[in-house]
Amino acid sequence: MAQAATEAAQTARATIGDSEFDRDTAVTLREHGVYDAELSAGWTIIHAVNGGYLLALLGRALGEALPHPDPFSVSAHYLTASVPGPAVVRTEIVRTGRTLSTGQASLFQYAADGSEIERIRVLATYGDLDALPDDVRTTALPPAMPARDQCLGPSDGPAPIPGSSAITERLDIKLDPATVGWAIGAPSGKGEMRGWFGLADGRDPDPLSLLLTVDALPPTSFELGLTGWTPTVELTAHVRCRPAPGPLRVAITTRNLAGGFLEEDAEVWDSADRLVAQSRQLAKAPRDA
Amino acid sequence: MAQAATEAAQTARATIGDSEFDRDTAVTLREHGVYDAELSAGWTIIHAVNGGYLLALLGRALGEALPHPDPFSVSAHYLTASVPGPAVVRTEIVRTGRTLSTGQASLFQYAADGSEIERIRVLATYGDLDALPDDVRTTALPPAMPARDQCLGPSDGPAPIPGSSAITERLDIKLDPATVGWAIGAPSGKGEMRGWFGLADGRDPDPLSLLLTVDALPPTSFELGLTGWTPTVELTAHVRCRPAPGPLRVAITTRNLAGGFLEEDAEVWDSADRLVAQSRQLAKAPRDA
Repeated sequence: MAQAATEAAQTARATIGDSEFDRDTAVTLREHGVYDAELSAGWTIIHAVNGGYLLALLGRALGEALPHPDPFSVSAHYLTASVPGPAVVRTEIVRTGRTLSTGQASLFQYAADGSEIERIRVLATYGDLDALPDDVRTTALPPAMPARDQCLGPSDGPAPIPGSSAITERLDIKLDPATVGWAIGAPSGKGEMRGWFGLADGRDPDPLSLLLTVDALPPTSFELGLTGWTPTVELTAHVRCRPAPGPLRVAITTRNLAGGFLEEDAEVWDSADRLVAQSRQLAKAPRDA
Repeated sequence: MAQAATEAAQTARATIGDSEFDRDTAVTLREHGVYDAELSAGWTIIHAVNGGYLLALLGRALGEALPHPDPFSVSAHYLTASVPGPAVVRTEIVRTGRTLSTGQASLFQYAADGSEIERIRVLATYGDLDALPDDVRTTALPPAMPARDQCLGPSDGPAPIPGSSAITERLDIKLDPATVGWAIGAPSGKGEMRGWFGLADGRDPDPLSLLLTVDALPPTSFELGLTGWTPTVELTAHVRCRPAPGPLRVAITTRNLAGGFLEEDAEVWDSADRLVAQSRQLAKAPRDA
């Protein structure tokens, strides 16, 4: 499926502003600071709406509300599970400065009686990535993983993402074979997940889509031999650089599974070997932990 | 100074609930969800109030407002620089659940005309650390550093923390000699800072004091040869376990200094070799970066 999508993308690539991701994260101004949205069923895993997609939608609303264009640091606390359908994002400008501005956003959906149920609350600081100096002094190295054509996607035998997942048709993920043991019942026991990431319609990455990328791979808990759900409690993403066009590499690491919780640290690298995003989430470990 | 304080502590140790830290993070209920506080000059570095101390004070107010006692995940966006003196914390309960509850808190101070200026806004999810299962499956190892008596404090020659810093009298920090090169003009060039952490009056660690601990060591930028100020933009701390009594070990790492920003990842380990807290902050690099 992703394979076919990739080939389609190679013939007619979607562009930033005109892609499945852009259409499905669209927000419509209802009144000052309030945006209507439709959570697309196209970004669900089993029945859950992907948390990274929701983060990107919130980030898009904040980008419209704040004077600065790019998310530098986005902190999200996940309150209740979102479902496909209507939603509203209520934003507040907390502070505006010369180089940085900070805002808050909440995603709500509607109960049967029409009352609003809060799904996610976010604090975020925005800036202008293009205004940053070019200095880079990093000791971080891109994750070691095989070439993209040596990695495994849904079309390569056992589905790396179990169950029927609409999101697998919108993503073009190829996992490092060293981190797909779980898909054939042989998890490595290491808290690692690595892979190549793209959008299936060929849309290039930008700071907003990075908010999806940091939470789009299978959970490291699968490689720890845990098969259950790992709901995110909190996720903070830092966008460090505007990503270059082309495929991204994502490496996720869990070092501490304890007390029924685990952290997932994600790094995203672009085709120019720049570390473009870092994230950490605290998640509940599956029951069988 | 810290040395003297340590000896004093050994004769009469402060206890949780009756210590400099507890007195200086005290909040007084003004009305439902609103707490008055006094930012102590005792926790300043040069003229800035330490960000970890402020985080602990906010965490304490949220602990009083929320039904669960312990901070599990605290995300703070730093808006304006706090100064010693009166402050008010306004809290909001976002969601209460069976095992977790989420709240928001803002720290305000007063302008000359009496109007409120927001300093920090926080989203936090609380739970009960004592209710967590004992399972630990971690690949994380305590930081390698010399024994405490082989590490260096303010009394050991060049002040590891430059300038006159009241906070050094309240903390009992002994830095790994491998990360104090900056103090004698010979920074290692590595983005690493490690040390033993305690409160000078001997008060043992608890989940609240861990919020101070994650932001109490000198910045890694000093070992990168940068001497300027590194203001925190965002800091998220996860408390993973109730700390055992006794000294803590703190290891802070910066891997990516780019575009005028850097991340600082902190790990805190207790005397029982448990990873008790993890944090990451995004900070502005000093001008001379």
